[in-house]
Amino acid sequence: MPVVNESGIIEQLMAAQTVERSDVSQGIGDDAAVTTLAAGCELVISSDMLCANTHFPEAMSAHAIGHRSLAVNLSDLAAMGAEPLWATLSLSLPAGNAQWVKEFAAGFCELAARHDVLLIGGDTVRGPLVVSVTVHGRVLAGSAVKRTGAGAGQSIFLTGRPGEAAAGCRALLESSTAAPGEHDSACSDALTRAFMYPQPRVREGLSLMGVASSMIDVSDGVHVDLQRLLASSGVGAVLDTDCVPLSAALLASTDRDQALEFALTGGDDYELCFTVPSENLAELESASTNWACELNRIGETIADPGIVWMKDGELFDVPATSFEHFK
Amino acid sequence: MPVVNESGIIEQLMAAQTVERSDVSQGIGDDAAVTTLAAGCELVISSDMLCANTHFPEAMSAHAIGHRSLAVNLSDLAAMGAEPLWATLSLSLPAGNAQWVKEFAAGFCELAARHDVLLIGGDTVRGPLVVSVTVHGRVLAGSAVKRTGAGAGQSIFLTGRPGEAAAGCRALLESSTAAPGEHDSACSDALTRAFMYPQPRVREGLSLMGVASSMIDVSDGVHVDLQRLLASSGVGAVLDTDCVPLSAALLASTDRDQALEFALTGGDDYELCFTVPSENLAELESASTNWACELNRIGETIADPGIVWMKDGELFDVPATSFEHFK
Repeated sequence: MPVVNESGIIEQLMAAQTVERSDVSQGIGDDAAVTTLAAGCELVISSDMLCANTHFPEAMSAHAIGHRSLAVNLSDLAAMGAEPLWATLSLSLPAGNAQWVKEFAAGFCELAARHDVLLIGGDTVRGPLVVSVTVHGRVLAGSAVKRTGAGAGQSIFLTGRPGEAAAGCRALLESSTAAPGEHDSACSDALTRAFMYPQPRVREGLSLMGVASSMIDVSDGVHVDLQRLLASSGVGAVLDTDCVPLSAALLASTDRDQALEFALTGGDDYELCFTVPSENLAELESASTNWACELNRIGETIADPGIVWMKDGELFDVPATSFEHFK
Repeated sequence: MPVVNESGIIEQLMAAQTVERSDVSQGIGDDAAVTTLAAGCELVISSDMLCANTHFPEAMSAHAIGHRSLAVNLSDLAAMGAEPLWATLSLSLPAGNAQWVKEFAAGFCELAARHDVLLIGGDTVRGPLVVSVTVHGRVLAGSAVKRTGAGAGQSIFLTGRPGEAAAGCRALLESSTAAPGEHDSACSDALTRAFMYPQPRVREGLSLMGVASSMIDVSDGVHVDLQRLLASSGVGAVLDTDCVPLSAALLASTDRDQALEFALTGGDDYELCFTVPSENLAELESASTNWACELNRIGETIADPGIVWMKDGELFDVPATSFEHFK
């Protein structure tokens, strides 16, 4: 197979990059990058690391790994209401397979271009397949939407249709051992695509600045991430499972109970979950008119701490299957 | 052994952290960090990733791994003449060994405290031992010392005594298989310490702003890193191997030829190599009066591209043993 060395990998990434930014005076090619932050803005910074076999199957397409490694980071910026600016990428690879690197670079840079993000630096090393990305964004000073801002009596919203990614991850793992034709491929394609190509809600997050009182991105599952937001804000919530939308592909792949479990605890969705005070609901309606994803009100915050889920008018116990590393 | 989970690792890191910074309005604990950059400054950003067995022996002390993972990043900021501000840390670990994490956090945070660097975020995941750090620093706008600024007829300087780290790396790898007493332990301790605890030349780099015309940090070896600087600046150089200082510990561990090879091509030194125009030499002298490391003039830039080393008045061929990943 054609191989590339360290400088070849950097060349592939630079060749795949189409974004130009006037706020970067030194990009790839020196000991560090040099950038300018617009006056009146604060800098928003997040880092996420993806390891083969912990976060994705090692055999998953390099294009999807490239997309996903940037997407999960952009999702963190979205959850702050920040506008993405720049990224650094550190890539550990077992071998310098040129075709793999080319596809990875394409997946990463296509998503970067969609959000006007410039790759400004990073590192390439020989080792196990691990991708580490740091993204930088900006907000007007004092305007970042944090986890701490929710008050009691506010509406809780969720973007998109959670659960597909978790079901897709299972389908992807099973497909490597399944006989051909054993799975419904159209349904499983939609699910695996949701896992492989999460769409960070960047524009949606940006439009929530000044509208949402608190926000988090759903990476570990709606239930556990919402618990984190509520704990940070010092409030509780009552939620209705019937308001959590389950997609047709998800329902076609499994029974309704399992589908709901995927939606509440599966993780890997990268949807936004946020609170809105009643006085901002009209503003939310106009802000969300042109969103690419659906939006559902799934419950309301209350003063008492804790999280209560209702199903068909009765209390519902969420299964304790949330994802945590090092468990 | 006592184990820690993901939140336990974050707690250990936060507990080890002693730095406070008023330019961080949101640190660890939300989807992303939020910071402020002082007016009139540019942001300097660098990322480096360290993999067990590629960059350090997996059995090396966790304290040294923590120190080293931040040190190599701070060295990149030093090479731009930047003042360090904040870091993010992404850590992949095979198991949540509480004692390992505690020592790693101590090594990382002790160095961070010495340079007033605040850990503002990151990620902890289960996987092979890989450490990925991104550091942020600042320079006065337009003042970053790049690799591109060298002109012909300028002096080339090198901090410290290169070669110890490469010899120390070899001693560290050999010590795991050597019989007790087989090595000179005082000498090998000094060398392994140079490898395990590189001292980023942050204060030295800062004082070179407006003095040095170009700068690079020596991570892959003086010869290859200086070649990169010269190529970026479009000049060449004539250098004298007799001006490259070889430490007593390095000379005690091996013969003079091997010592020189370690010094020129061994890498892992994290010293600064920079050019100074003649009109700035007096300024360099006063700037370097209180440096913690020694400083040597090792040669001069010339208009013709290429790098020429002299030894005892004759041309010297540097062995082609420079470190490159994916070779």
